[in-house]
Amino acid sequence: MADKEQLMAAVKVEAEKIDAVMLEDLARLRPEFDPLLSDVLEYGLFNGGKRIRPLLVVLCARLAGSNDEKVYELAKAFEYLHAATLFHDDVIDNALTRRGRPAVNRQFGLVAAILAGDFLHARSMEIVGEMTGNDGLRVFCQATAGMVDGEFMQLRNASETNLSKVDYAEAIMGKTGLLIAASCEIGGLFGGATRVQQQALRTYGVGLGCAFQMIDDLLDYTGDEKKTGKRVGNDLAEGKMTLPLIETLERADQSDRELLEKILKDQILRTEQFQVVSGLIDKYNGYDATRRKAEAAVQDAVASLDCFPGTDTDPAKQTLLALTRYVLNRHK
Amino acid sequence: MADKEQLMAAVKVEAEKIDAVMLEDLARLRPEFDPLLSDVLEYGLFNGGKRIRPLLVVLCARLAGSNDEKVYELAKAFEYLHAATLFHDDVIDNALTRRGRPAVNRQFGLVAAILAGDFLHARSMEIVGEMTGNDGLRVFCQATAGMVDGEFMQLRNASETNLSKVDYAEAIMGKTGLLIAASCEIGGLFGGATRVQQQALRTYGVGLGCAFQMIDDLLDYTGDEKKTGKRVGNDLAEGKMTLPLIETLERADQSDRELLEKILKDQILRTEQFQVVSGLIDKYNGYDATRRKAEAAVQDAVASLDCFPGTDTDPAKQTLLALTRYVLNRHK
Repeated sequence: MADKEQLMAAVKVEAEKIDAVMLEDLARLRPEFDPLLSDVLEYGLFNGGKRIRPLLVVLCARLAGSNDEKVYELAKAFEYLHAATLFHDDVIDNALTRRGRPAVNRQFGLVAAILAGDFLHARSMEIVGEMTGNDGLRVFCQATAGMVDGEFMQLRNASETNLSKVDYAEAIMGKTGLLIAASCEIGGLFGGATRVQQQALRTYGVGLGCAFQMIDDLLDYTGDEKKTGKRVGNDLAEGKMTLPLIETLERADQSDRELLEKILKDQILRTEQFQVVSGLIDKYNGYDATRRKAEAAVQDAVASLDCFPGTDTDPAKQTLLALTRYVLNRHK
Repeated sequence: MADKEQLMAAVKVEAEKIDAVMLEDLARLRPEFDPLLSDVLEYGLFNGGKRIRPLLVVLCARLAGSNDEKVYELAKAFEYLHAATLFHDDVIDNALTRRGRPAVNRQFGLVAAILAGDFLHARSMEIVGEMTGNDGLRVFCQATAGMVDGEFMQLRNASETNLSKVDYAEAIMGKTGLLIAASCEIGGLFGGATRVQQQALRTYGVGLGCAFQMIDDLLDYTGDEKKTGKRVGNDLAEGKMTLPLIETLERADQSDRELLEKILKDQILRTEQFQVVSGLIDKYNGYDATRRKAEAAVQDAVASLDCFPGTDTDPAKQTLLALTRYVLNRHK
């Protein structure tokens, strides 16, 4: 618990600095651009997000040995790209809310959500190019391309019940892993990490991001609605094949497997069906298997930091390690 | 006529080279990315477009003295960004067709259109950063930001009858001018133009792009449907304030002005109303005024090329000049 409180305090300090830099940027942009665009950006960017991606940029630059305060200018680009992705995702999913408020597409309309996303896209790439040159820009743009690719795969595989683990891995990389990995890699690049260290930081990001997503998928079945603030069973209701289900389908005997496939195929996914599915996942240890995969991902992440010897008392490293523990232990 | 035929032949040769480079790029991307994404890109990029933006990149690099064939790799990025803009615009306008075929959002759905646009966005910025460094990337990203800004202004001003000339100028810059200007400026940068020459090429692009858009707005009232392939009166039917109308509203006496404003406000815009509006534009020389503005824009464009002395026989310059004449004289 002390660990978590310390982490939250460290995260809060950095999040405030990142917010300050973003506010400064918006104030600079405001006179140049349409007031409606500025309003959309302010609404969409300041929504109580934890600024995890910019935080990782800052921490990885620090771990690589840099104390340059300009890192916050770079870091904000990762929140911009993240927000751009959310604006477009919410249009795509026709989402009603985001973090308890009307989503941008609801508050300002589809047109504004698409266009403001495009704006942040361009602005983020300009910043990353400016501050980390072609090496950083390539990683950043390829993360974007990979995220789009992952969504196309999901689009094509929608309602596909025999989604493989390979496809799942690709989907969660696209959804979370790629941008987290790029944040770490580019933070390291900015901070002066060697090429090998940059790759190690990327590995850390992949592990952290994938563990986060796996636990997210677990909580969608087993979470306490009072803590998560989300209804359980959303993924199943939307027909999404996530790891607990994939692991179960792999192990289930023929009759259980056929039952699961029938439920998924019929798309009648009410509480009763959720309880059947949830029971079967439990029976075949699908939850345990998912948690073990998340633990293995975190182990990879932790091990990769060995590339930075003699940094065990470094506060940046301690925060990076605390983040991996937090991801595994979170209940919301 | 000979002028036009020569121009078309020159355009065709370059368009084929640009198409070849894009096809090569798509073939390279195909194994890495989802097949559906590749299909959308191929469909959306190969739609019979004239490749004007990449052509301008190539011509401006040549005029600046470069014969580097790599310019085609850079040039394709401008077609990518243009296509990304069209994909998103067609989602925004809920467009049915584009160049006589179902628009991407119709053929593959809204989700695919948004995502493929995002992909091309990122890919185009990666290429421009890689090939022209921060100076080029900044111009490119700021053109994107400016295009978005122009659309926000239009969104905010929709159904605003007293749109000023300043707003109109900003709108056509966003719609056409900025990306054309960036194509010319970045082409020059790649080709080794001095800073002053880069700015001159930008001025050329602004003039060409704005003249193009003004003539477009003129043809929307006065065009021959058989030649343009578009129905006249579209802009009025959509309540768009374009230059012929703005010029007329400025000169009309009080009763004519009130009549125009009533028609615009009532939004009952059938053939009968179109004829009344068209007649009033004619009465107050709104068409002539629009054409004169387009001619002035072209004159600025032509004059800016004086920054490249001793190039009068240069084929690139001749094509750039022929383009300005074509823009003024086109009937479709």
